[in-house]
Amino acid sequence: MLRTHYVNEITSDMDGKEVTLAGWVHEVRETAKITFLILRDRTGTVQVIGKKGDVDDSILKAMSLPKESVISVKGRVKASKEAKKGYEIIPTVVTNLNPISAPIPFEVTGKVPAEIDVRLDNRYVDIRRMETSAIFNIESTILNTFMSTLTKKGFQQIRTPCIIAESSEGGSDLFPVAYFEKSAYLAQSPQLYKQLAVIGGLNPVMIMPVFRAEKSNTTSHLTEVTQMDIEMGFADADDVIKILVDTVKHIVTAVKEENKVDLETLGAKLDIPEAKIVTYEQVIKGLQKKGHKIEMGHDFSKEHEKAVQEVFGDAVVIKDYPTAIRAFYSMPKKDDPEYSNSFDYIYKGLEISSGAQRIHDPEMLIEALKKRKLNPKAFEFYINAFRCGAPPHAGWSVGLERLAMQITGAKNIRECALFPRDRKRLTP
Amino acid sequence: MLRTHYVNEITSDMDGKEVTLAGWVHEVRETAKITFLILRDRTGTVQVIGKKGDVDDSILKAMSLPKESVISVKGRVKASKEAKKGYEIIPTVVTNLNPISAPIPFEVTGKVPAEIDVRLDNRYVDIRRMETSAIFNIESTILNTFMSTLTKKGFQQIRTPCIIAESSEGGSDLFPVAYFEKSAYLAQSPQLYKQLAVIGGLNPVMIMPVFRAEKSNTTSHLTEVTQMDIEMGFADADDVIKILVDTVKHIVTAVKEENKVDLETLGAKLDIPEAKIVTYEQVIKGLQKKGHKIEMGHDFSKEHEKAVQEVFGDAVVIKDYPTAIRAFYSMPKKDDPEYSNSFDYIYKGLEISSGAQRIHDPEMLIEALKKRKLNPKAFEFYINAFRCGAPPHAGWSVGLERLAMQITGAKNIRECALFPRDRKRLTP
Repeated sequence: MLRTHYVNEITSDMDGKEVTLAGWVHEVRETAKITFLILRDRTGTVQVIGKKGDVDDSILKAMSLPKESVISVKGRVKASKEAKKGYEIIPTVVTNLNPISAPIPFEVTGKVPAEIDVRLDNRYVDIRRMETSAIFNIESTILNTFMSTLTKKGFQQIRTPCIIAESSEGGSDLFPVAYFEKSAYLAQSPQLYKQLAVIGGLNPVMIMPVFRAEKSNTTSHLTEVTQMDIEMGFADADDVIKILVDTVKHIVTAVKEENKVDLETLGAKLDIPEAKIVTYEQVIKGLQKKGHKIEMGHDFSKEHEKAVQEVFGDAVVIKDYPTAIRAFYSMPKKDDPEYSNSFDYIYKGLEISSGAQRIHDPEMLIEALKKRKLNPKAFEFYINAFRCGAPPHAGWSVGLERLAMQITGAKNIRECALFPRDRKRLTP
Repeated sequence: MLRTHYVNEITSDMDGKEVTLAGWVHEVRETAKITFLILRDRTGTVQVIGKKGDVDDSILKAMSLPKESVISVKGRVKASKEAKKGYEIIPTVVTNLNPISAPIPFEVTGKVPAEIDVRLDNRYVDIRRMETSAIFNIESTILNTFMSTLTKKGFQQIRTPCIIAESSEGGSDLFPVAYFEKSAYLAQSPQLYKQLAVIGGLNPVMIMPVFRAEKSNTTSHLTEVTQMDIEMGFADADDVIKILVDTVKHIVTAVKEENKVDLETLGAKLDIPEAKIVTYEQVIKGLQKKGHKIEMGHDFSKEHEKAVQEVFGDAVVIKDYPTAIRAFYSMPKKDDPEYSNSFDYIYKGLEISSGAQRIHDPEMLIEALKKRKLNPKAFEFYINAFRCGAPPHAGWSVGLERLAMQITGAKNIRECALFPRDRKRLTP
């Protein structure tokens, strides 16, 4: 057996017990009399100590390994007041499981990390760094908490297609796919499909990849991201805003509880977000008052989003956006159709979520498409669904990598995608 | 408010209470004195009764609606011994939320269902059928139970890219994607990426779409399916077979408990699977003994898989396949390299899962690629990862739609994909 315990399962109470640990050589220090080997697994590090005379010379030789060698260590737990953790391991067998046969591209334990492109080119080494694995430990909590929070609220998990025949948003930034004899695209969003599911009586929640062929190369855009979505029948914008605010709060609370060590590693401090709900107009006026240049009717830039944090706080839901600057399917307000029942969640100065009540009247939908110079013919399968008993409905999506950025304090969205895809990066 | 209660929250104890229900008109029956309206939401159906004299004539008029109209009904719960459920609803307000403006493409309540292609073309109507929604209720349970079972076992949820630069399996059935100036493909499997994650020290579990440009058009193949995967470091085939057997058992148990009504609707009976673990050789001999034509060294056909059920039972893990008929990264057995540490799970006569211990020695990997006439140059980024401290590892994947087929008794895999994609179908 290669492993009986993970590192974090060892305590000084286990003094004398025989264990087998497995992981990577984090560091080796050799003196004339002692060899110190730090073994690292995904739960932490532990010191293995070989003293000349105490252990066989063959074991000391076996411990003399290059960093990042993958090993299994059988040994005895020894409680020790001098050891940092209160215990160390006295080895009886050290096995090199797969000898290193190439130079490690950069130091895993390096105080100064390598350039991000070097790290991403060698992601299988980069994720051995505590700072990197902390991000993916947190992302796992985000994904699990998102789904469990919403299934507890009665949503059901569905899957929607990535290969589609038409643009879902009317946009042009689509990746074409050669689909046998037909032309197809990668989905920019599961939007139309989750709406069809609701028209069919389902109550969908989903986690799906989405694809955007944007030519921009910023620190907050990727070409392939993970979108976390809900759509809810017989609901309006305020109903789903409540669910959004509660879901984000649940996620941050779970990360605070389940990823204490990871947050420490990253030096990230988290407050439970108590979202403020404000209107688009209030935000425009609030920003203008602080001297920011923005006029009614315009969308917020990255800089404006940062200003929203300064003026309104870390967790802000902005609602009632102008209809003209939102997607065609956003429901105009009954009393003032220039504005719509749409909203964004700005978390720590970055948009992490967008949503709206959707138009459920097919004629209104055709008008909205025409106003945006989109061809209703191309959306026929979608429009027709609204003629056969479509309930009022609303929904939103949250971008996984963006939410992870804001929670972990990462400065580049590429840090929060295990194998990121952008304008230039397609490997590994 | 459009809804205060779901149908399944109403009981006869609530006699006299005012409630608001929302959903679809399942059926309407009008006699001279009474109008019966069956309202359906995603939890069930309830009878709304309007008696001339008891309720206002305007309400009776409002109840006279075409089937599948989407409505909200405010009314009073009335306990009644004659009513099928022990209660009915006496309406005070009936609101048509979105008038029907096209013929419903087929009868939702039809005893004889429409052809599958008609149903799939109009999936937003089809999922209103109890038989169809039952499948997706069950699929939600499968997805949630898969993830919760494995995260409880210490796996962490990750996301891997769908857009890739190279084939992951060396196969040719790939969909090309126009990725800016580069050529790219849709991932056939997250295989290489989950291995890189393990080499980096993660313990991955994931649910990802995979894409196969197979030209075949069978009842068990789709071009886009959902794959549920794990990969585990410091583990061999037997370690991960145990986890696979336990995960499938957990999933079937959860469906039995959480989807009783759905299973009844489908007429599906489920036994908790107690998997039998047998070798490839035992299966070949067992099938030969029963008169099936198959020789050592050959893979099992669909018919053979069905015969496996007859001979060995509903839940069979077959291990130690010939190396030559498995993917290049399957680890040959130390004592007999003609056979490999690989396995399949045959559930009710259909392969639902495939897995193996993987080769972690880079030179052995190069040999395996060459033997299959694959170019090691094309896999350089992958092979190099094995030179920098790659632990022994093993893993498997389960096909969501195939498992759902076997659990629900569906005869066509298209029934188990909400918006299926195949050789011919790209919409809706």
